[in-house]
Amino acid sequence: MFNASPDVRIQLARAAPLHPRGLRDVPLSSVVLTNGDIDHVAGLLTLREQQHFDLFATQGIHDVLNQNPIFDALKPDIVPRRPIALGEPFEPSKGLTAELFAVPGKVPLYLEGDTVETELVGEQTVGVALSAQGKSAYYIPGCAKLTDDLRARLDGADMVFFDGTLWSDDEMQKEGVGHKTGKRMGHMSMSGSDGSIAAFDGLDIGQKIFVHMNNTNPVFRPDAPERAIAEAAGWVIAEDGMEVRP
Amino acid sequence: MFNASPDVRIQLARAAPLHPRGLRDVPLSSVVLTNGDIDHVAGLLTLREQQHFDLFATQGIHDVLNQNPIFDALKPDIVPRRPIALGEPFEPSKGLTAELFAVPGKVPLYLEGDTVETELVGEQTVGVALSAQGKSAYYIPGCAKLTDDLRARLDGADMVFFDGTLWSDDEMQKEGVGHKTGKRMGHMSMSGSDGSIAAFDGLDIGQKIFVHMNNTNPVFRPDAPERAIAEAAGWVIAEDGMEVRP
Repeated sequence: MFNASPDVRIQLARAAPLHPRGLRDVPLSSVVLTNGDIDHVAGLLTLREQQHFDLFATQGIHDVLNQNPIFDALKPDIVPRRPIALGEPFEPSKGLTAELFAVPGKVPLYLEGDTVETELVGEQTVGVALSAQGKSAYYIPGCAKLTDDLRARLDGADMVFFDGTLWSDDEMQKEGVGHKTGKRMGHMSMSGSDGSIAAFDGLDIGQKIFVHMNNTNPVFRPDAPERAIAEAAGWVIAEDGMEVRP
Repeated sequence: MFNASPDVRIQLARAAPLHPRGLRDVPLSSVVLTNGDIDHVAGLLTLREQQHFDLFATQGIHDVLNQNPIFDALKPDIVPRRPIALGEPFEPSKGLTAELFAVPGKVPLYLEGDTVETELVGEQTVGVALSAQGKSAYYIPGCAKLTDDLRARLDGADMVFFDGTLWSDDEMQKEGVGHKTGKRMGHMSMSGSDGSIAAFDGLDIGQKIFVHMNNTNPVFRPDAPERAIAEAAGWVIAEDGMEVRP
């Protein structure tokens, strides 16, 4: 599980002890991409030290990488690209089972045309279902809408990591750092009647953790009222280097 | 002038006072690429906040970017791509004149074929001649060989920033972090009879500054004998955030 965003990185699972394989080793045996946009894939360019890992993604996301020769720095014989069909279980690490499923989202910024479908359901934006030792976790760093199907899927999970990009849809405009709304970027916001906090209400989930926060999101501030609201609704705000256990 | 390498960044010249243009402003009015490899171009992906700068490079380097749609995140109407012919003066910032010239090098790692020409002279690896207020500086972060032409060009300069990747050609092998020599990567090393310290001997240059050091280069250590040798030969080892004046 991997997100190159500067915002938050979560190490979801270590299924086996990690043994360094050299001075330049990174303790990764596999990377799962949930999106082809820059904040998800640019970090691959810092992993080009000729060390093995498996790169899992839908064929749609692999196609995006394949269109960019710069990623050939990750040589296929060292970093095999493994296409995964939606709904097909795979094993990113020994003892850890994963499955990709479509969530509403959009194509990467750099592939946007004149019109952009922001609630596209397909191979471009996916969530990951993880299970190990009888526990279940879901990793969904980008999601435009919590559909009924998605709600039903998450109900009863031990852990859910969910898109926490913005607190409110017009936050970037208000802060004067951009003209786009959250919806335009393919993200549902935390607050409001159509927000994620309301949408998760009533679901039985062991731990709910917001990830992928934008730097405008007020929940980053320890004393922000917005953070208190999220926490009162049972959410944890992820932080860099965080480790979690179900 | 811009180098996305984690090793060293040098801000060569501020020709005019910089006025922030917003909360997400970066104080750059232009970027000049001297190479299309990842350590030179990946940083562009962090400059995609819809703010204007001019992107100068040879057509050969622009072609490399154009082959990778991920760089379309820098929209052409906000970040115009300006092709510069070798030997053609241009003005990356008001009052600062620049000129690109070919130096021996190679194509980017991710475009390497089965055989690699490591002393290729063309548009893929260039140096930059800078002049302002009667002073001259040269920025050459990658160079496979100091040719007689290049020596003649640099003689009499006020400042030269030069390829300091490795101390010795087999340094990465010795340190156990890679199998490539410096020559294979298109870099001449600092030491040895064919190294840069020897090659610059006898040239009249105001300040000689090594940049682009690899993290295996012993000159990084303040007490390293190699650093003392470089300094005794009149070289300065650049460091992050360094500012220099001719």
